[in-house]
Amino acid sequence: MADTRKLRLGAFVPATGHHLAAWRHPDADARAGVSFAHYRDLAIQAERAKFDLLFLADSAGLRGDQPDALSRQGKVVHFEPLTLLSALSAVTERIGLVATVTTTYNEPYHLARKFASLDHLSGGRAGWNLVTSSNEHEATNFNREQHVPHALRYERAREFAEVVTGLWDSWEDDAFLRDKESGLFFEPEKLHVLHHKGQHFSVRGPLNVARSPQGWPVIVQAGASEPGKELAAETAEAIFAAHQTTGEAVAFYADVKGRMAKYGREPDHLKIMPGVFPVVGRTRQEAKDKFEQLQDLIHPEAGLNLLSMHLGGIDLSHLDVDQPLPDILPETNAGKSRQKLVQELGRREGLTVRQLYLRIAGARGHWQIVGTPSDIVDLLQERFEARGADGFNVMPPYLPGGLTDFIELVVPELRRRGLFRSDYAGRTLRENLGLPRPAHGAAARLRRSAIHHAAE
Amino acid sequence: MADTRKLRLGAFVPATGHHLAAWRHPDADARAGVSFAHYRDLAIQAERAKFDLLFLADSAGLRGDQPDALSRQGKVVHFEPLTLLSALSAVTERIGLVATVTTTYNEPYHLARKFASLDHLSGGRAGWNLVTSSNEHEATNFNREQHVPHALRYERAREFAEVVTGLWDSWEDDAFLRDKESGLFFEPEKLHVLHHKGQHFSVRGPLNVARSPQGWPVIVQAGASEPGKELAAETAEAIFAAHQTTGEAVAFYADVKGRMAKYGREPDHLKIMPGVFPVVGRTRQEAKDKFEQLQDLIHPEAGLNLLSMHLGGIDLSHLDVDQPLPDILPETNAGKSRQKLVQELGRREGLTVRQLYLRIAGARGHWQIVGTPSDIVDLLQERFEARGADGFNVMPPYLPGGLTDFIELVVPELRRRGLFRSDYAGRTLRENLGLPRPAHGAAARLRRSAIHHAAE
Repeated sequence: MADTRKLRLGAFVPATGHHLAAWRHPDADARAGVSFAHYRDLAIQAERAKFDLLFLADSAGLRGDQPDALSRQGKVVHFEPLTLLSALSAVTERIGLVATVTTTYNEPYHLARKFASLDHLSGGRAGWNLVTSSNEHEATNFNREQHVPHALRYERAREFAEVVTGLWDSWEDDAFLRDKESGLFFEPEKLHVLHHKGQHFSVRGPLNVARSPQGWPVIVQAGASEPGKELAAETAEAIFAAHQTTGEAVAFYADVKGRMAKYGREPDHLKIMPGVFPVVGRTRQEAKDKFEQLQDLIHPEAGLNLLSMHLGGIDLSHLDVDQPLPDILPETNAGKSRQKLVQELGRREGLTVRQLYLRIAGARGHWQIVGTPSDIVDLLQERFEARGADGFNVMPPYLPGGLTDFIELVVPELRRRGLFRSDYAGRTLRENLGLPRPAHGAAARLRRSAIHHAAE
Repeated sequence: MADTRKLRLGAFVPATGHHLAAWRHPDADARAGVSFAHYRDLAIQAERAKFDLLFLADSAGLRGDQPDALSRQGKVVHFEPLTLLSALSAVTERIGLVATVTTTYNEPYHLARKFASLDHLSGGRAGWNLVTSSNEHEATNFNREQHVPHALRYERAREFAEVVTGLWDSWEDDAFLRDKESGLFFEPEKLHVLHHKGQHFSVRGPLNVARSPQGWPVIVQAGASEPGKELAAETAEAIFAAHQTTGEAVAFYADVKGRMAKYGREPDHLKIMPGVFPVVGRTRQEAKDKFEQLQDLIHPEAGLNLLSMHLGGIDLSHLDVDQPLPDILPETNAGKSRQKLVQELGRREGLTVRQLYLRIAGARGHWQIVGTPSDIVDLLQERFEARGADGFNVMPPYLPGGLTDFIELVVPELRRRGLFRSDYAGRTLRENLGLPRPAHGAAARLRRSAIHHAAE
């Protein structure tokens, strides 16, 4: 059975790359965050290599209170993902386009419309990475003094997904007759008004976009907390996960897929794609040198600032960087799973604060592999075959070099071992990921389940 | 002085065209609303003809309560404008890209980001048509039972503009050093946190997009009510106006431009571009025939539904279509200037309900000219030279044929008379429209003015 499984690949492409100091790399274009040409070339390159999707992270805010600490970060300004992916849809033909958009500070009607529109523009290649906001400074851009509490964010996210999918089902697939002769543009009985009234949202509908090529854009998620896993089991079709070890990955994989049956879903209808940060060299020494070159470019202030952000924005300036993190950190309301990941990494390996920021400066809590193509593929294959992953979201250390390395050195090795296909399976992101197209009316499942929850 | 003025041209391109029955025209692609190829071809065609801009209207909702009446409308589903224009930015180089987005049911942070992002993607060609929502059914998609009252919508719109422009000034133009050597990405003192706290919004900032090529995307407006004109005089750089006669147009032009001095603005820094619906024939008879062909395609139910929407959604089903509109119509809370326009048209010309819907089925209250290229240019020239317009927003009856007619027949005549340039003046929309680039900090004018208003 493992023989016929093919792994999926995403290209997760922040402007200059994932490493904290990527923008300082001699080959990096430090203007990448506002360069469409940069992204166009990346997208075309990833498409030629038959990547399933491009993946863009997002935040609707920026910490402005410590400009000095921030001033050494290369990722402070960048395109907004939906506008960027829409532009990329016009210069690509097959690669999926996945944008992160938060459910915490958005309205489901706007979001449903924009993703349906992108799905039409791209001929069925849109994906939505559904997240809840994990940073406090987003709140202050949206009429709030304080961040929305974690549990409430997930409650809102679930209802958000229910409304969005309901809106995507506003029209049956064959509602539009466009019959010039009779003058009937659509069949009235194939229009479905949502009339949603819930805890967080009251949205009548219908959507003013026709049902899109994929029925629904693919729903991706990333949360690893309890409510995050539950929401994913109920609603996600792909997960961007973060695990250091195969053991953790296999447990997570089994856990989330095991929760799907109670929602009437097949385990195979959710693809788990952990992040991997690969530093590729023709020899191990070359790979190590590449990594050290980036590490040496980290300014200590930038390192501390990154660590602080990963721990929910807490102040670390008083700490001795040559000591470990204190066991107890101040309570925050930010992304708990990421915070826990970083703390555990420090504890497990007995790292000092400096060592810790150096460790997360690349993969930022994700899985980091420094080695030859064969080393990297050995590890990917092991995790894939152990059912810790259905594929990987590749996080190049710097761009475009890090992606080029992966495509030129790692992808051929994956193909040699029969792990990765050499052409696209279909025209839509769903077809390539091996996900079913939701039949019209599928959103009703989420609605019924909400009614069931409410009645409990 | 009139000799050196050149008129500006916008191409206002709803899917199949402006005429109510456009989608039924034999040459129309009835799938245009979801066809990127259709829009790509239109944009390229308009750019070759050196149009200043493409203009897209919008509504974040759709009347779902009368599916039968709606089912004969060809414009019920269409791309969302910001995603569509982003995609078009990748296949064009010079034409401006103006999207309508409402201030009534949006958050300024999202909007500021998306337009700044589009401005970067397009190399300085973005424009925002700032509107307040004019239809009730948008409200019900955004957690409201009822539409926001007219006065409150304008109050919110003004503050919205203040926040958006403030966010566009988050970074000075030269804030980003991107100095690989020192590791300094930006100069901390060139980051400006907005800290806005007002009646409607509390937005801290800063924006996570660098100041865009145009400084600010061009701000367009369309409202013709008292608060609409005042807001335009204070904040707009182009106006999409609707006037039937040169007298009205000249009065409006003088009125709005006359209000600018008190805001410290030059009259020339606001371009007034009335809509014009041209039906072009090589002979007058050919033009008339083209128009009649479209009029004959109007289904009576579609006509009544259109009229009802133009009057704020009131029920007209009980009316005798061969009598005039009643003098007094039910109160509504929708776009008052459009409603007034339609009522006055009916009264002035003594039209029956049927004649009225036939009259608005094309230009929908805008200026309609059916004639030869020379007829059309005579009228445009008269209005332009009388200072009733700085240019025109061309509303093709059907697409692409109506735009092709204008480009092939009318544009050459405009050029022969020295009214329209034969190449772009610059690379950005501002340069082409002849608008100054706002210096960093220009948003402070709006903030000071708000404080002044509050202190009164």
